Amino acid sequence: MAGPRRPISWRARTYRGAPRPARAGARDLPVAHTLSTVCARTPSARAVGPRARRGTIVDVDRIGIADTMFARYDMGGEAIDELRKCPGYGERFGIVRRTVPGFKDLGVECKKLIEEDGCRIVVALGMPGRAAIDQVCAHEASQGIMLAQLLTNTHVLEVFVHENEEEDPARLATVCVDRARKHARNAYWMLYEPEQLTQRAGQGVRQGYEDAGPLPSPPD
Amino acid sequence: MAGPRRPISWRARTYRGAPRPARAGARDLPVAHTLSTVCARTPSARAVGPRARRGTIVDVDRIGIADTMFARYDMGGEAIDELRKCPGYGERFGIVRRTVPGFKDLGVECKKLIEEDGCRIVVALGMPGRAAIDQVCAHEASQGIMLAQLLTNTHVLEVFVHENEEEDPARLATVCVDRARKHARNAYWMLYEPEQLTQRAGQGVRQGYEDAGPLPSPPD
Amino acid sequence: MAGPRRPISWRARTYRGAPRPARAGARDLPVAHTLSTVCARTPSARAVGPRARRGTIVDVDRIGIADTMFARYDMGGEAIDELRKCPGYGERFGIVRRTVPGFKDLGVECKKLIEEDGCRIVVALGMPGRAAIDQVCAHEASQGIMLAQLLTNTHVLEVFVHENEEEDPARLATVCVDRARKHARNAYWMLYEPEQLTQRAGQGVRQGYEDAGPLPSPPD
Amino acid sequence: MAGPRRPISWRARTYRGAPRPARAGARDLPVAHTLSTVCARTPSARAVGPRARRGTIVDVDRIGIADTMFARYDMGGEAIDELRKCPGYGERFGIVRRTVPGFKDLGVECKKLIEEDGCRIVVALGMPGRAAIDQVCAHEASQGIMLAQLLTNTHVLEVFVHENEEEDPARLATVCVDRARKHARNAYWMLYEPEQLTQRAGQGVRQGYEDAGPLPSPPD
Amino acid sequence: MAGPRRPISWRARTYRGAPRPARAGARDLPVAHTLSTVCARTPSARAVGPRARRGTIVDVDRIGIADTMFARYDMGGEAIDELRKCPGYGERFGIVRRTVPGFKDLGVECKKLIEEDGCRIVVALGMPGRAAIDQVCAHEASQGIMLAQLLTNTHVLEVFVHENEEEDPARLATVCVDRARKHARNAYWMLYEPEQLTQRAGQGVRQGYEDAGPLPSPPD
Repeated sequence: MAGPRRPISWRARTYRGAPRPARAGARDLPVAHTLSTVCARTPSARAVGPRARRGTIVDVDRIGIADTMFARYDMGGEAIDELRKCPGYGERFGIVRRTVPGFKDLGVECKKLIEEDGCRIVVALGMPGRAAIDQVCAHEASQGIMLAQLLTNTHVLEVFVHENEEEDPARLATVCVDRARKHARNAYWMLYEPEQLTQRAGQGVRQGYEDAGPLPSPPD
Repeated sequence: MAGPRRPISWRARTYRGAPRPARAGARDLPVAHTLSTVCARTPSARAVGPRARRGTIVDVDRIGIADTMFARYDMGGEAIDELRKCPGYGERFGIVRRTVPGFKDLGVECKKLIEEDGCRIVVALGMPGRAAIDQVCAHEASQGIMLAQLLTNTHVLEVFVHENEEEDPARLATVCVDRARKHARNAYWMLYEPEQLTQRAGQGVRQGYEDAGPLPSPPD
Repeated sequence: MAGPRRPISWRARTYRGAPRPARAGARDLPVAHTLSTVCARTPSARAVGPRARRGTIVDVDRIGIADTMFARYDMGGEAIDELRKCPGYGERFGIVRRTVPGFKDLGVECKKLIEEDGCRIVVALGMPGRAAIDQVCAHEASQGIMLAQLLTNTHVLEVFVHENEEEDPARLATVCVDRARKHARNAYWMLYEPEQLTQRAGQGVRQGYEDAGPLPSPPD
Repeated sequence: MAGPRRPISWRARTYRGAPRPARAGARDLPVAHTLSTVCARTPSARAVGPRARRGTIVDVDRIGIADTMFARYDMGGEAIDELRKCPGYGERFGIVRRTVPGFKDLGVECKKLIEEDGCRIVVALGMPGRAAIDQVCAHEASQGIMLAQLLTNTHVLEVFVHENEEEDPARLATVCVDRARKHARNAYWMLYEPEQLTQRAGQGVRQGYEDAGPLPSPPD
Repeated sequence: MAGPRRPISWRARTYRGAPRPARAGARDLPVAHTLSTVCARTPSARAVGPRARRGTIVDVDRIGIADTMFARYDMGGEAIDELRKCPGYGERFGIVRRTVPGFKDLGVECKKLIEEDGCRIVVALGMPGRAAIDQVCAHEASQGIMLAQLLTNTHVLEVFVHENEEEDPARLATVCVDRARKHARNAYWMLYEPEQLTQRAGQGVRQGYEDAGPLPSPPD
């Protein structure tokens, strides 16, 4: 499980990021957000190069990762690690990561990743707590992510692991790893291999746990 | 019940799809989504022909089918099979299918089918699980589908079969087949025979189960 | 109670409808919806005449009626019958009716009636079932109708009769008749006699049942 | 308590109202809504004068009052009476009142008051009933009012008195009077004396009941 | 704990504020809102200087603070006090504060702070009461704040302290202070030091209480 560790060295690079390239829909005020990409040694490094600094559109796809400080596991790191194993990483697509305080901040961050950073798809990761109020907040957070998608015609894969899904912390962490990585792979498929999804239509595919599988055919 | 099997051969063709034709509202970035149509041997095959590849508007209506990997029955296949039996299939209208991971991804997919693929109506199929959280997610998914309709002035028929509607898997599958096919027929009627709906106004029509029928007239 | 029967002969005319006139906000693709109006023998018959067929704006107000096949009573027919008794019917205003499968399809249909058919106000009628899930769906349907109003700056009077409001079917039908007719009258008042509403402000007016009446004045 | 009575004479004038002045965002179809203003004998009477009839913008601020026939107390009348006691009434600002059937009709009415009547702030008053379904409807109504504000960048003060707040009708009426008047005053403050609100920040101010007051300071 | 006191003298200055500068998205009617800034003695005093009075864009970032009269603790004062301790206060950024009646008024106020006052980020503070209805209102308020963010592509940090989080008033006040100050610091970080957030991704960071900390790594 090198996932949780790798993002450490990766975060170290975020400090040397470029500002968000100006884009249609971006506010005309300068944006201070740091652009953090994990492919600093690849052709897409131009994303954080002088051109990006001058607000041009980079010529590599971007997949956004939005996660939170509130979550108790670095699911964003897992998703990034999974994407780095996908074909074309660094060549065909790069990764942009943003971390916000809590999952209710994910909705607008996803929209900014799409409209201001040019991400073509986003994976949004969060962990609702055990309290009753956390369930309401999770509902509000999900509605925000839903609206971000509809206002941008862009998919955002919501990866929420509810803290009360598992009592045992280690098992909860296992759910985090599995769900984050499977949805990161789904994001890749949706962009580049959509037939992978169509082939699994109605097959009871799950993330975080084993697949439920399909129902038997009804009696004729 | 050839429905569940037919989509197999059909899916095999999705790999040879064309990119989404560029349209007003479509993002200016190239879209990698595969266009899968079931009428590859018909006049509307132009939909996946060179013209479509060059981003032109096809001259046949399109009905969209959006389904999920999460669902445990291939309801999308049933809906497609039903539409293939409707008058004018392949001549007057073709079908575009997209599969997403879960039902919360249906909202934006329906909007993309309408705005990027030019579908005039969409059938969205999903299966909420048995857990309490699944009910909340279903509510969020429905709100996304609702918003997709209102933002596009286009109908999207939501076909959700809740896993807890039936205990017996075979009976649950029967509900899936009946509801998917009846709503596919409704989509056809709404486009081409709306009087079929008006004639049934207030008649207690149901999908998935038998009709409830109308109430008796009130006493004068 | 001729209401429930009259719509029958009325529906018979819907087959001879004209396409929706093209309007700002209408999609540029041809729309197959049938225009059904109950004033075929009046000056406003022009609404379904050659001019309308050529997509012009008709010179008579339109009041929209949106109802469902799911409902177990023809509330749309009641509302239409009530409007036919209002001053200026056929002269000052005509009626456009659309029937959709279920109440969750009402939101976008109301928006289409307003933006594509030019209705100045709409009465939306539906009947949520007895199941718990039906209550959630009713909430979603109401949110869609709410949004349709806010996006068009046009009132849509929601006429929902919950099947669990009354155990006795005959009494439930009585509620349907009363609520549908009173709200149809409200729609007429809102367009042409708003002072009728202001005069009843805070008077505990009800539809479906008798008025609750006003509270006593507080002690000085 | 002249409040509940005064609106009677006031309503009598609403019949002689002017049509809504045409404005950006207003629909291009003629709007029949009656403009009712309580300052017919003041300089702002121009609001209902020939100029307004010709669709010009009046040169006096407008505060909107939206209430319902469903409510069991004339809270709108109370709010209007309170505003008439505020400095500059009739000189600096006038009042526009609209009454709708129920509180779910308030959202779009508030938006129309802002966009079609030019109101700079609106007070929306309603009374949810005792039934469980009424609580859901109140939630939907509130969401509509929320959206009306966000789509217009204009405040709408929601004044809802839930019928189940008090068992005794007289006490319930007292709550209606207090809440309606205090929020009418808040609306005046937000437009002309915002420092009145800032001075009360975090002070546990309430409407309908006595203030809760501030918490004690935390231990250092 | 000088926080709760400091805002007093601060509020005294709000009366000498400037009108909101006119901006794209601002309504063309004059806006009477008072601009209150706490850096009247700093270079950013230009924000409330003659130029701002003439509706120009000020050349200093603005962080918005939106709070309520309903809350029982001056959380807005705490947030302002915390921001004053951040690097660049008065030089790089100033503060704009608005107080509204209740938390349901925060959504549109945040949007106005962003679109009419040019705030680049907003901290919205409120305190839902103990009643059941207050929980529903809090949900509605949160949805409004969520929408304000999505419609402006700007973050709004929601700082809600539910009155029922603590029985003891002093402890509740302590939660208010901690949560308000930590989120004020988060707002500063999001604008100027986003790497501070990324470094804490998935670390179980909390506001109002001590951090929950990260989960253990899953077994390999």
